[in-house]
Amino acid sequence: MLIKQGINSGFGAIYMLASSPVLRRQQFLIRSLGDYSDQNTNTHQKRMQGIKFTSGASLEADAENVLRAITPTLDPNRHKGQAGKIAVIGGCREYTGAPYFAAISALKIGADLSHVFCTKDAASVIKSYSPELIVHPVLEESYGVRDDEKRVISGKILAEVAKWMERFDCLVIGPGLGRDPFLLDCVSKIIKLARQSNVPIVIDGDGLFLVTNSLDLVSGYPLAVLTPNVNEYKRLVQKVLSCEVNDEEAHEQLLSLAKRIGGVTILRKGKSDFISDGETVKSVSIYGSPRRCGGQGDILSGSVAVFLSWARHAIRDGDSSISSKNPATLGCIAGSALMRKAASLAFENKKRSTLTTDIIEYLGRSLEDICPVC
Amino acid sequence: MLIKQGINSGFGAIYMLASSPVLRRQQFLIRSLGDYSDQNTNTHQKRMQGIKFTSGASLEADAENVLRAITPTLDPNRHKGQAGKIAVIGGCREYTGAPYFAAISALKIGADLSHVFCTKDAASVIKSYSPELIVHPVLEESYGVRDDEKRVISGKILAEVAKWMERFDCLVIGPGLGRDPFLLDCVSKIIKLARQSNVPIVIDGDGLFLVTNSLDLVSGYPLAVLTPNVNEYKRLVQKVLSCEVNDEEAHEQLLSLAKRIGGVTILRKGKSDFISDGETVKSVSIYGSPRRCGGQGDILSGSVAVFLSWARHAIRDGDSSISSKNPATLGCIAGSALMRKAASLAFENKKRSTLTTDIIEYLGRSLEDICPVC
Repeated sequence: MLIKQGINSGFGAIYMLASSPVLRRQQFLIRSLGDYSDQNTNTHQKRMQGIKFTSGASLEADAENVLRAITPTLDPNRHKGQAGKIAVIGGCREYTGAPYFAAISALKIGADLSHVFCTKDAASVIKSYSPELIVHPVLEESYGVRDDEKRVISGKILAEVAKWMERFDCLVIGPGLGRDPFLLDCVSKIIKLARQSNVPIVIDGDGLFLVTNSLDLVSGYPLAVLTPNVNEYKRLVQKVLSCEVNDEEAHEQLLSLAKRIGGVTILRKGKSDFISDGETVKSVSIYGSPRRCGGQGDILSGSVAVFLSWARHAIRDGDSSISSKNPATLGCIAGSALMRKAASLAFENKKRSTLTTDIIEYLGRSLEDICPVC
Repeated sequence: MLIKQGINSGFGAIYMLASSPVLRRQQFLIRSLGDYSDQNTNTHQKRMQGIKFTSGASLEADAENVLRAITPTLDPNRHKGQAGKIAVIGGCREYTGAPYFAAISALKIGADLSHVFCTKDAASVIKSYSPELIVHPVLEESYGVRDDEKRVISGKILAEVAKWMERFDCLVIGPGLGRDPFLLDCVSKIIKLARQSNVPIVIDGDGLFLVTNSLDLVSGYPLAVLTPNVNEYKRLVQKVLSCEVNDEEAHEQLLSLAKRIGGVTILRKGKSDFISDGETVKSVSIYGSPRRCGGQGDILSGSVAVFLSWARHAIRDGDSSISSKNPATLGCIAGSALMRKAASLAFENKKRSTLTTDIIEYLGRSLEDICPVC
């Protein structure tokens, strides 16, 4: 049956990839299995055993257990904000849906507060979608700023964002950002500010256009996550590795790419999602939905932001099952799995009519199915 | 029973029309049956056999089979955009509902992306109806433009639309466009641009006012579809054929009209919808709804745009059952049938309260009933 395939479906793609040269694959798997093997299988012998049984399926993340490990219990003693404060940087004259989808998804998963920093034009529209969001009309596009004002206005924008920065557990940068040069210049400064404050950043959409052209913005920052789709990944590979996407050696290439950008985490979206931080590669292949309506990437970026925050808290709280893991990778695995499960449920109900709004409505139930509150 | 009549209902109207002079009808049917007969019945004898048994019902399109032939399978390997990217040109200070209805209908049927190009006044309202749409506030009306600015602003508007044009599978031109002279002048240029780019266009509402007065805009463009209602059809007949609408010879007149405009496809809306590209005439008579609330024509225009795009893809992919057909005609048949089925289901549920929004909510189920996803 097409819809309700289990969590271990979708290995066909991995088996196909396993046809690349044996030696190179072994070397690759030795690297990639290191961190995520269930026991401390650090000897060469054990690693090789791992390769034997895992040549097809080893990369598939145990996403449900990751979700259970990082999702916080709901404790009546907690107060507002402790389950996560997310901010989306995006929304301009042209685009208002994308930042809304990212921000509302964060709330629907369980974050306590979700902010949007956007242009004035976008703000009232985004506010009208939902009273649940806190929307800051602070960004500016070139058409509204004279050349001689730019320095002052850029400074004001940065000051507006800066006074909030340390309150946020994660920023999502890019949904509906547009490509206006002045706006992107301000966003570059916001990214630098987030790094100084050690706030994690998830970069999608036009944010990827920005960082692909200015890799220094994220290079070497382990709390940065990039979530490219097919075309965005292609541009990233061309820019960073100076070659074309090689699907025969997809995992090796993803690993190299993440390593070359200094250990950022990359979530390569596709039929299966592949996730690498330059040290390991994991896949999430739970069956989602064959609908490709615009906006699904925005749900994912908002979801990854929440789960990344939760993973950091769980690791800080000493959860031994994930203490050695990279919270960015865990956030990607959880976000990808939840998004796919919600998309599958929405599609089961709405079929071809499934829109992004329908998928968002299933985020809560999907998480509850995997990780009930009591 | 009134509501759930089958797809072959509604032939009464055609029988009535069959009372017009026998000879003229025979000549007409010989022409119109040519392309859509199920086998290659190109001999005179076979055509005449066709006339004998089809004098009442032959024009009725096999709409369900058309829908099944052109609706693409949902394949997890596809990526965003491959199921269709539609743009609606419409929406001004006065009208915002019409372009929304057309654009959201396209998404609910299964298109991946739906854009609206409208005036600044309309944009924030249309955006607020749904975060699923991408709304470009680029059009201008005369009241906002000084005479000496018109040339420059017109150029800017065209450039804004041009940078997107080649990404679109079909444009819908007219829903909520209004009749401002400067705006219509810009839309004339957009139509020319679409023709240069070989992008299909569906023209409705005030777009029909525009092209009825400037027939050159669409004349001889086989990828143009006009969807006139009673009054719009009357004006078109008066302008093109210099006579009044003749319901005694309705099909012949429709055929002549489409031929005279150089083979555009005309969907004449009415109790039954009649569709002609100047070569054939087909009807769609599935029972819809007796409610005539405003906005149903907008659903139809958005639907035809999606199905026309899908029909072109199916023909390009070599679907032998439709390879010799006109994708514009197929799109009209499918759009008309789906709209009527959705209206029927909505009316069954909401009766006199049925509004356009209710009908849109049944588009998905209606398509699923005819053409299930798996």
